[in-house]
Amino acid sequence: MDDISGFSISVVGLGLMGGSLAGALKGKCKKIVGVDQDQVVIQRALARGFIDEGTTDLATGVKNVDVVVLATPVRSIIKLVEHISPLLAEGCVLMDLGSTKAQILQAMAALPPHIQPLGGHPMCGKEISGIEAADIDLYHERTFILSPLDRTSMNTLALGKALARAVGAVPLIVEGKRQDFLVGTLSHLPYLLACALISTADKTTSPDPLAWKIVAGGYRDTSRVAGSDVTMMVDILSTNRDEVLRAVEVYIAQLQRLADLVAQGNAGESALRDALEYIRTTRKEHYP
Amino acid sequence: MDDISGFSISVVGLGLMGGSLAGALKGKCKKIVGVDQDQVVIQRALARGFIDEGTTDLATGVKNVDVVVLATPVRSIIKLVEHISPLLAEGCVLMDLGSTKAQILQAMAALPPHIQPLGGHPMCGKEISGIEAADIDLYHERTFILSPLDRTSMNTLALGKALARAVGAVPLIVEGKRQDFLVGTLSHLPYLLACALISTADKTTSPDPLAWKIVAGGYRDTSRVAGSDVTMMVDILSTNRDEVLRAVEVYIAQLQRLADLVAQGNAGESALRDALEYIRTTRKEHYP
Repeated sequence: MDDISGFSISVVGLGLMGGSLAGALKGKCKKIVGVDQDQVVIQRALARGFIDEGTTDLATGVKNVDVVVLATPVRSIIKLVEHISPLLAEGCVLMDLGSTKAQILQAMAALPPHIQPLGGHPMCGKEISGIEAADIDLYHERTFILSPLDRTSMNTLALGKALARAVGAVPLIVEGKRQDFLVGTLSHLPYLLACALISTADKTTSPDPLAWKIVAGGYRDTSRVAGSDVTMMVDILSTNRDEVLRAVEVYIAQLQRLADLVAQGNAGESALRDALEYIRTTRKEHYP
Repeated sequence: MDDISGFSISVVGLGLMGGSLAGALKGKCKKIVGVDQDQVVIQRALARGFIDEGTTDLATGVKNVDVVVLATPVRSIIKLVEHISPLLAEGCVLMDLGSTKAQILQAMAALPPHIQPLGGHPMCGKEISGIEAADIDLYHERTFILSPLDRTSMNTLALGKALARAVGAVPLIVEGKRQDFLVGTLSHLPYLLACALISTADKTTSPDPLAWKIVAGGYRDTSRVAGSDVTMMVDILSTNRDEVLRAVEVYIAQLQRLADLVAQGNAGESALRDALEYIRTTRKEHYP
């Protein structure tokens, strides 16, 4: 199971993540099948050379393949997990690419025994979406989280690792609840922060026509992920609600602490400087 | 005054901003003199070909030049404005590159009449600092804010525009208080947001050794400006305190509004989706 060349793989959902995965797997496995609700997307995936075959019919697309990868928004993944098993062959491996894992793994735990489930979450993306944004290098050198269930076999986990490596990613095994805690702060929180920054400018500076002439890299980068696909993000926020809300609460306290030091003027300046130096050093440890 | 080839220019402070400006002006004016407290920095600026002459002595460096550009942190700029005039030639133009303008312009207004003051703020930067980070393309195609005083002559303003264009920038005239309002939200707020994100991760996820393996582009970009020079930022926050604190207040309300919609679950979902779609569309208007 440490190479995928003998397997037929079906990717359900040919957006940014699924389209990129299919394109990166194409030619490295026996056959890559693309499934999408939109015939135009199937045509684009075929035209870009990302899939060997494509269909808008789920039953046709996942029939008799060895591996099915669900690459839709999280709540669609959950619904697919709940209904897909009658369509799958005996021993089929069912993976997903969803950003939150706990609820998906819960649904996977209820699958009938002839299916082999494995949670997945590649740590990459773009602020643009759809098959046009897909890129076969998207996974290159990125962490690909794998979240096995208690029932997941060693063979299935090995296959998941091989699939991650085949698209150039680095597999990392992380338990579902732990991954949701980590990405709640490291990925979902930054999305809300970026959105709130756009909202703030919209309420204050944006009516000034000069605002968009002077805006520079800091605003652009800090707001970048606010361009993410909304359906994808609403599903993520909805299925990781507790972790995200906890992260926002800690965040507001940290921001308020810095603002309070600014407000204190000279009296707070030494503490402000220390706090900002600590933050700067902390970041530089990871982004030298 | 629409070209600078006949002028000798002194840049005080050879960090990222001053070093880059000097390097971009070199060869386009009669002489470019660099002034810095640190002899090692002078040597590096000479070695990188950014200046014609350099000195650690302010009086020597600004004597008899036509233009002096102050490129130190904001509160150092204010102190220099208060003390530099006896060192300057009759008719010398005194500019600055500080991120906040109101307090600097206030100090400039008190200059003796033989000095021609002009506020400046180029909308560019990096999260790294110092002469090593300097880059003669830093100003290329960036907005260079010019904030004239009531006493600033048309000739001086034309010279400021010519200087901005000479480094590849696009001059834009913005009144001081208006610029401080705009950059308070568009530049200084993003810095505090990035810092609070680093603090939040530090308090919650960073102790988990897997955190830094899974962290992806969203966190990296949203936290990028937290790497900015702390002395520069403390001076900026201190001299634009009211605008920055107002921006933080609006920001927290916007973030809390989004979090409240997330917390409401199904009941808030339609409003959450609308808010996020509006934000996404708003951003895409400016970053297509």
